[in-house]
Amino acid sequence: MTGAEESQLLELEERFRGGDVRALARALTLAESGHPLGQALLKRLRGRGQAKVVGVTGSPGAGKSTLTDRLILEARRRGERVGVLAVDPSSPFTGGAILGDRIRMMRHHQDPGVFIRSMASRGALGGLAGATVAALNLLEAFGFDRIFVETVGVGQSEVDIARVADTTLLVLTPAAGDAVQAFKAGVMEIADLFAINKFDLPGGERLIQELKGALELSPPRPGGWHPPIYPTVAATGEGVEALFEGLEAHHRHLVEHGLLAAQRLERARFEVESVIQDWGRRKTQAAEALVARVAKGELSPEEAALTLLRPEA
Amino acid sequence: MTGAEESQLLELEERFRGGDVRALARALTLAESGHPLGQALLKRLRGRGQAKVVGVTGSPGAGKSTLTDRLILEARRRGERVGVLAVDPSSPFTGGAILGDRIRMMRHHQDPGVFIRSMASRGALGGLAGATVAALNLLEAFGFDRIFVETVGVGQSEVDIARVADTTLLVLTPAAGDAVQAFKAGVMEIADLFAINKFDLPGGERLIQELKGALELSPPRPGGWHPPIYPTVAATGEGVEALFEGLEAHHRHLVEHGLLAAQRLERARFEVESVIQDWGRRKTQAAEALVARVAKGELSPEEAALTLLRPEA
Repeated sequence: MTGAEESQLLELEERFRGGDVRALARALTLAESGHPLGQALLKRLRGRGQAKVVGVTGSPGAGKSTLTDRLILEARRRGERVGVLAVDPSSPFTGGAILGDRIRMMRHHQDPGVFIRSMASRGALGGLAGATVAALNLLEAFGFDRIFVETVGVGQSEVDIARVADTTLLVLTPAAGDAVQAFKAGVMEIADLFAINKFDLPGGERLIQELKGALELSPPRPGGWHPPIYPTVAATGEGVEALFEGLEAHHRHLVEHGLLAAQRLERARFEVESVIQDWGRRKTQAAEALVARVAKGELSPEEAALTLLRPEA
Repeated sequence: MTGAEESQLLELEERFRGGDVRALARALTLAESGHPLGQALLKRLRGRGQAKVVGVTGSPGAGKSTLTDRLILEARRRGERVGVLAVDPSSPFTGGAILGDRIRMMRHHQDPGVFIRSMASRGALGGLAGATVAALNLLEAFGFDRIFVETVGVGQSEVDIARVADTTLLVLTPAAGDAVQAFKAGVMEIADLFAINKFDLPGGERLIQELKGALELSPPRPGGWHPPIYPTVAATGEGVEALFEGLEAHHRHLVEHGLLAAQRLERARFEVESVIQDWGRRKTQAAEALVARVAKGELSPEEAALTLLRPEA
């Protein structure tokens, strides 16, 4: 790091610690782009703050953004400062529509107690990116009481969010296929709570019964937690207060059973794995040359990996 | 490697090169368990042989095993020596049923021109394991003309198989939901050919039309390949000869457009990434201690990853 960069870092850190939202925004941009300054800042701020981190996931159209919007209002009513990470899948097919949905959350724009950030999901294999967790750590270090991480539930990102969040909320709707999707993809096991949103549509009660049946067959949870199911209508706010109480109950469960530390350990494990995975996917000239030698049979994959990761060895 | 291990390796290699099927079976067991002897053997055999590698994927119940069985018969009719890797998902829920299906392939047990191996999929993130590709490389080195890799299409393993196989065949059925699944999960883009199996069920023609519509909207393929759609009834063998011709046509396409080398490069890239990913997921005591320090904020994930991968640095 040059002297100029170092003084830039110190200035940014001071503004960040002072609660300057623009410093947070700048830090997030640095973290998202993988800039070394962002990593250096994050390192100095690590361990600062302790938020209740809630992952909100579910299929597109389940109303996750509207429900998150309602949960923000409820958290604000209780005096909490709220950070939101809205993670977009990089798919060009769905990106636009989801961003559109999120405009609903814009009403919090004038509220200094709410900070919302959209991020592109650029994780390998379609999962959460390491940068997403870096952003989450920054929000936590900034001192928010609660952080919502909203991800579109498409395969891997749902599994990842459960590793990163303290509490994972799966949003379903009575719409045909939603339950089937949940049961198929094995996301049942990652949800700590369920919201049956758009409960004013027909089929809500049946979905609850199906879900209860499936939950009875699923393996027991740490500390004997039984995932509750909450009917909600995010558009009107119906059921949101009860759902928020459910989030609080799950957090108390984690604390009372000493499970919060294990969850934070899992988040750190995810971060380290993400870094290593990213390194493995670097398409530098050197990496490509090594891969070509593997394809020719000149090197084993193990030898190539070793050379790639330990260039000085 | 000790002297005893070295002589064991040399003996195994000699028998392998001599075409001893038991040596192949032993080598596969070593590779699957990640034994260093397996890696050493594979390194000595790398680049030997050149098979046409066909990935067969699709949802459970699509009839992949029965169709593969028919394709084996067709390949044998043409005088090809055939290797088969049947990759099981590690899920205890579906494993049993799928293994049951595969009993149908047992009829080839007496045919010395066919070698079938079942493997557990133990890849990180539910995808193909690095060991699966090691096994594929061993089958190729053994001198098979054609290798079928059958995977249950669940999320990541479908994407992985397309990276590893030269030709990827997606098996669908007219059963409700199959098409929707294909369109949703983005597997459309990974398939080089489609088989609509169980075409004697109602809805086959409609599925073909839907598929054609979706294919018209999907991005162009390398060399201008248009994925063909084959109606099949694996139970009776109907349509299998045409499908096999399709596999051949795709292989010719790869060769004529110089795409085979790129495909093999992708396979090598997958291997190197798998090795690195496995390293990142080692849960050794040292790794856990590093993760704990990240959770405490004492180390950045980058520092932990570096220490983990370069213990001597």
